[in-house]
Formats: sequence, C-alpha cells, structure tokens
Amino acid sequence: MPDADVSDAPINPSRLKAMMEKVSTFGGKPNGAMNRLTLSKTDGQARDWLGGWFKEHNFEQQIDPIGNQFGKLSLAGANAPTVMVGSHLDSQPNGGRFDGALGVISACEAVLAVSERLKAEGRLAACNFQVVNWTNEEGARFQPSLLGSSVFAGALELDWALDRADGDGVTVRQSLAEIGYAGTDKVARPDALIELHIEGDDKLFASSERFGVFTRFWGATKYRLAFLGEQAHTGPTPMAQRKDALLAAAHLIADLKQIAGEHGLDLHTSVGRLEVYPNSPNTVPAEAVLFIELRSGSPEVLAEAEDKMKARIEAAANKAEVGFEVRSIDRRRAGGFAPGLVALAERAAARRGETARHLDTIGGHDAVAMSAVCPSIVMAVRSKDGVIHHPTEYTSPEDHAASTQILAEMLYALARDGLKVIDPEGAGV
Amino acid sequence: MPDADVSDAPINPSRLKAMMEKVSTFGGKPNGAMNRLTLSKTDGQARDWLGGWFKEHNFEQQIDPIGNQFGKLSLAGANAPTVMVGSHLDSQPNGGRFDGALGVISACEAVLAVSERLKAEGRLAACNFQVVNWTNEEGARFQPSLLGSSVFAGALELDWALDRADGDGVTVRQSLAEIGYAGTDKVARPDALIELHIEGDDKLFASSERFGVFTRFWGATKYRLAFLGEQAHTGPTPMAQRKDALLAAAHLIADLKQIAGEHGLDLHTSVGRLEVYPNSPNTVPAEAVLFIELRSGSPEVLAEAEDKMKARIEAAANKAEVGFEVRSIDRRRAGGFAPGLVALAERAAARRGETARHLDTIGGHDAVAMSAVCPSIVMAVRSKDGVIHHPTEYTSPEDHAASTQILAEMLYALARDGLKVIDPEGAGV
Repeated sequence: MPDADVSDAPINPSRLKAMMEKVSTFGGKPNGAMNRLTLSKTDGQARDWLGGWFKEHNFEQQIDPIGNQFGKLSLAGANAPTVMVGSHLDSQPNGGRFDGALGVISACEAVLAVSERLKAEGRLAACNFQVVNWTNEEGARFQPSLLGSSVFAGALELDWALDRADGDGVTVRQSLAEIGYAGTDKVARPDALIELHIEGDDKLFASSERFGVFTRFWGATKYRLAFLGEQAHTGPTPMAQRKDALLAAAHLIADLKQIAGEHGLDLHTSVGRLEVYPNSPNTVPAEAVLFIELRSGSPEVLAEAEDKMKARIEAAANKAEVGFEVRSIDRRRAGGFAPGLVALAERAAARRGETARHLDTIGGHDAVAMSAVCPSIVMAVRSKDGVIHHPTEYTSPEDHAASTQILAEMLYALARDGLKVIDPEGAGV
Repeated sequence: MPDADVSDAPINPSRLKAMMEKVSTFGGKPNGAMNRLTLSKTDGQARDWLGGWFKEHNFEQQIDPIGNQFGKLSLAGANAPTVMVGSHLDSQPNGGRFDGALGVISACEAVLAVSERLKAEGRLAACNFQVVNWTNEEGARFQPSLLGSSVFAGALELDWALDRADGDGVTVRQSLAEIGYAGTDKVARPDALIELHIEGDDKLFASSERFGVFTRFWGATKYRLAFLGEQAHTGPTPMAQRKDALLAAAHLIADLKQIAGEHGLDLHTSVGRLEVYPNSPNTVPAEAVLFIELRSGSPEVLAEAEDKMKARIEAAANKAEVGFEVRSIDRRRAGGFAPGLVALAERAAARRGETARHLDTIGGHDAVAMSAVCPSIVMAVRSKDGVIHHPTEYTSPEDHAASTQILAEMLYALARDGLKVIDPEGAGV
C-alpha cells in the first residue's frame, strides 16, 4: 500500500482492522465461519454495535420501516447532495466474515477519514455522507434477497416485504420487532450510492490484482416451485402407485444442470435450497419445494433458459405423476453501473497505484437494486482463491485497507468538488 | 360382527371405541392428522394416559431403559409363561391415528376382556399377559425404526440406541429424560408376542375382507448416505467449478426409481428424507444426506439392488464431482412369523366368521424384531383404501372391534390351555 501521507484522506489501517475484528465477533466462530442471518439475534447485536459506533462519531442514526440502518454525517448544508456508502451486515448460514461486513466497515472508516481530513483543512464539504447497512441482502433467511434495498428503491412494496416468512414461518415484521429494528424514519434517496464488496470470484486473485470495478450486472430469474405428490408409506405402497414429489424434484435438478451446459459460460443455474415434506425416512414425500435460480448477463439467454425450464418442470411432474405450482417468481434485469462512478473509481485506484479491472457481477448486490434510482456502483476487493459463502472466505487486512483507501479518495473528491466529479461529461477529480 | 355372547371372551366395543378416541387426542387434529413423534411431548402425554389406564386396571407398569412401556397383568403364577401383546403409540409426522395406536388399544381391551371372562368363570389362567407400547417404531424422528423392540430383542446395543439423535441433534437419551421415561426396569423376554396392526395396504379392503395374518416379512436395507460437495455462491461460481452435493443426490434419487423398475413388484426403493446443508437459495449445497430404503421379500433381489445402488452412488458422485460417505447401514432380513401363532389366528378368525388371508408385510413391525427371540406374529385389520402414514388413514370402529375380538379369542385360548395352543405339533384351541 502507498504511504498514507500521500493520500488526500488517509485512512487508519489499524482502526479499520480493529473494527473488522470487532464486527466479526457477532455470530462469528474462531474458524472463520459466520452465522449472522438477517434479523437474527446476532444480527441485532451487530446492528447495536454499529449504532454505538455512529453515536460515538456523531453520525445521526435512522432506521426505516424495513429495518435498513443509516448513519448520516452532515458535513455540508441540508440542501447539499447526499452520497450513500455501505453494504450489509447479514451473512449466509455458515458463511464468511467479509461478504457484506467488509463494505460497511470500509464505509465507516472512509467517511471518518474524509471528515477528519476536511476538519484538518478547515474545508466545508460539498456533500453529506450516509453510511448504510441494508436489511437482508443475502436472501438466506427470507426471500427475495436485496430485500431492504429493493423496498428502499421502490421496487418492492413495504407491506409485502414485511410479510415474507422464513422456514419456520416467522415474518420479517416479527423479526424486526424482536430485535428492535422496526423503524419509522423516512429516509430520502441519496444522490449516489457507492458499495465496496469482496469480489466473490477469483479473477482478481488469479491475476494478482487487488481492486476491481463492477461495470455490469447479470440478470436473474428466481422461481420458488413446489412439486405436489401424495404422502404414503415407503414400505407397502406399490411403486406404481407412488406420487413422489422428491422424485420430480430430482429430475428437474438434473435437468437444470443440463440446461446450463447448453449455454456455456453465459448461464448459471442452481437449486440451493430444497424443502421436503414431511421428510420422514419411511414416508413418500408429499411436497418438495425448490428454490431455483437462473442467471445470465444476456436477457435473451435468460428468457430462453426459462422457457426450457418450464418444459422440464412439466416433464418432471409427469414422470413422477405429481402436480406442481409456482409459488413465486422474482426477476432482476441485467444492466450496467453508473459510468461516472466507474471513472471516479478508476482515477482513485490509479492515484493509489492500483489497477481497476472491469468485472461483471453475477451475484446480486444492493447497488444493483439502487442503480434503478440513483447513480450506483459496486467495487471489488480480491477474495483469496475467489471463495465466498464459506468460512474460508478471506480478504487480507492489507487488501482491505488498500481498497478502503481508494474508497476514501473517491469520497474525498465528492466532498471537495461535489457531484460534478461523477458527471461523465464533467471535469473529474 | 357375531354376537358377543357366543364369544369365549367378549370384548366391549363401546369401551374400545372410547379408548381409541381418547388416545387420538394426544397429538391428533380434528381432520385425522396425527403428530405424535416418538418421545415428543404428545407422546409423553399418551404414555401417561396409558400408564393411568394400567394403574386403574391393576396392570403393573414397567419402563425399561430404552423407554418401552409395559403393563403386566398377573393372572397365573410367577413361573407361568408370559404372552406379550401390543404395538406402538408413536406416529409419523402428519400421519394417521391408527398406525400403532390401534394395536395398543386392542391389546388393553383384549387382555381386560379375557381377565373379566376368567374371573367370571372362576378359572385360573395358564399364562400372564403383558401389554407393550414400543419406543420409536416409526423411525421418523430417530433412526433406525423399531428401535425399542430391537434393543429389547438384543439386536441393538442400548447405549448406541440412546445416542441416536434427531434432526435437531437431540438424543433419545435426552428425550427419554425430558418426558420422564428413562426407565430402569429389567423386563424379561416373553414366551410369545402378538401384535394387531392396520394392514397399511389395500389387499383386504379391495377384497372386502376385514382380517388377515402376516406370514412373511420383507427384508430391508437402509442407507444413510451423504454426498459431500463444496459450499459456494450460486451467482459468480462458474458452473464447471461447482461441487454440488444436491445434484449428486438428484441423480441417485432418479436412479433408485429406475432400479426398482428393473425388479417389477419384487423391489421397493425410496428416498423419504433428504437433508440439505446449508440449504440457502444462493449457496451451492455442500452436503446432501439421503435416507435410502431398499425393500424386498427376496434376499437375492435385495443384495442385487444394493450392488446396483453402490455403482450408481459412485456414478452420481463422479457426475457432480463430489465425494460421498455412507453414514450408516441398517439391514433387516426377510423371514416368516411363527406358524403356531398363524394357525391360532386362523382358528380364532374362523370362530368369529372371518377369513384370515395370508399377507406379506413390507413395512417393518416390532414383531419382526421380536421374531428373532420368541414366537411372534402380526395380524392385520383392513385400512380404508389401504391408506397409511396419512391423515386419511382409517379403520372403522366395527372392524377394530371385530379384529380385537379375534385377538381376545387367541389370548383366551392361551390363558385357558397355555403355550401348547401355539405349538405347531400340538392340540390347538
């Protein structure tokens, strides 16, 4: 990492490292595993800790009705633009420490570093900053993912979102109340949204680059599909009379893998969650609910894959002589991030001596949801071996600091010169 | 049903019906659904009720270390033989009222009817009776099934059985303590074991016969098999790099159905339970645990099917590029019930004007486990449409009474003339 003293707004790497270690204690295990499902008790603890940090550093906390947690540092007037920066503190079950949390911690440190620098310079800022921790980015406990940012961006109805239930039937509404995050604050949309996130792929790591910029995001089509069979004893019930919902699921799972193969690298398919009912060793399954994802950078490929899948669903149901019903469909369109923010990130990286490889993001990010309503970007810091959603997920403190420093440079440019630095036609940093 | 007054030991149909209704309140719903998983709170309540019944009717209750519940009625001397009669009160999740419970209630009523008759006649009995409620017949919550009877018969080690854990990691040992059924009584093996059970198939119902005798039991080979993949993000992780444990499971589930098809009516195969880990919609499954059953009346077919399955397990693992491990194997040999008890049941049925069709039992029964250590039999009363393990499982009060009356005739014959009535070379009733 370049020396801090040549930076516009030098961050404090040891302070950053200490924060990252602290937040990892909420739901974390010594082996690196993280269990901080959204709106769980441990998520509540992490939120409380973040709120305490906001208070300590004079960030004004706001909680909106879907539980998104904001901390605003007013450095400019009330009419000045607001730049939002952050990510999410929730994790996958048995996930890693860095997915999400790294971006929230970086946001806190970068905004703090910029404010300290402005104070030292006696300079008035051209914008205000707002750190954000979005609710349920992961979609592990409640579906769909990106729930908080999608409600905030107006893509999902608040009441519908609050009624989503987890596998035990507990709703978002109940869970928010339980951990004390059923907020009532009305929070305005920001003028720009910047997110730092681990890459979650091995392109940077494989090429020994530590920083990258997502320029495009893949689209996704997600089905929750139930095959409906008939409960019976696995002993006496003749094979020909069975209506086995799990058998239909098995056919479709194999078919989805085959459909992906027909589109080379352009299509990802998966069934990550499968609920079987009653799930007893000696009872023929009456119901199998599949959580299916199709993902592609190409809307045409995505549509074609969905058509193929529909045909295979019917075929699988027929083979096992069961019924089926589509319980929900969630679509996310492919698109691109704000070019002005991409250029700002590239310039900031160059100042710090880092490359800024352009990447596609295939996984969803809150910035994808937000890109519908304001200029947005996700930047990537490398993950060791590209691992994500696993306890061995890892970004070194040095890489974390280097990428946070680039983030701070970007925020400093915005604070000094205002939104014109992200106007693609404008002057730049 | 023939008039009660021509019976040797007339049962009381209204008392029987009231008992059946009472026991159905523990874990039962108005629609017929029964949730009385073994050693659950509702199972504890049903056991307590049965214990109260034992006390009221001067049956001496004993609980052994695996929680089997016995109620002994001493009608003869301490050195007289003991005839055990009963079934199990545990149910499948969302199962029916009659599977198991019917046999326990019939045992209570039949023994009571016989003792009342002997008393009225002033006759001394040639044997003692012991009603039994076996622990975990179903194998829904803990595996293997037939746990209590297998420990009692010496086929399973007590400590190993107590350490079996349910899906939440709760052990049999803990559950027994929680509901107060961690017993210490040493209960001797009986001289004969008689079980009445619903048929669980539609052979009797389809031919308008209400009573049958199981003469043979199918063998079963049960595997608990884990495919071991690698947890990763379903978004960015390239399809070619995924090691999807659920995909391997899907291939094997489809293959098992195919293997059954290769053996016509002689082989049943199933995967009734599937555990997926971490089971999050956007995480590639790291682990899929299949609860596989192969069942056949022919040891040769069973062995051949197992060999085929082993080859398919390897093929499925290779296709999905995952590993696998066999977590447990449970084998139950095919065999036959005691001919002397079959003959006794036939004679008793004939006296009551009922046929006694010979049946194979494919599902396991506690009498199968017990047949290794004493003359044993399971008798069948018809189930409406052959339904079992489902809320619509149904045996009418009339059929229940008729089959209980046959059971009472058998017990009366044993009480009057002793074990010679089940000696195949002996005199008969």
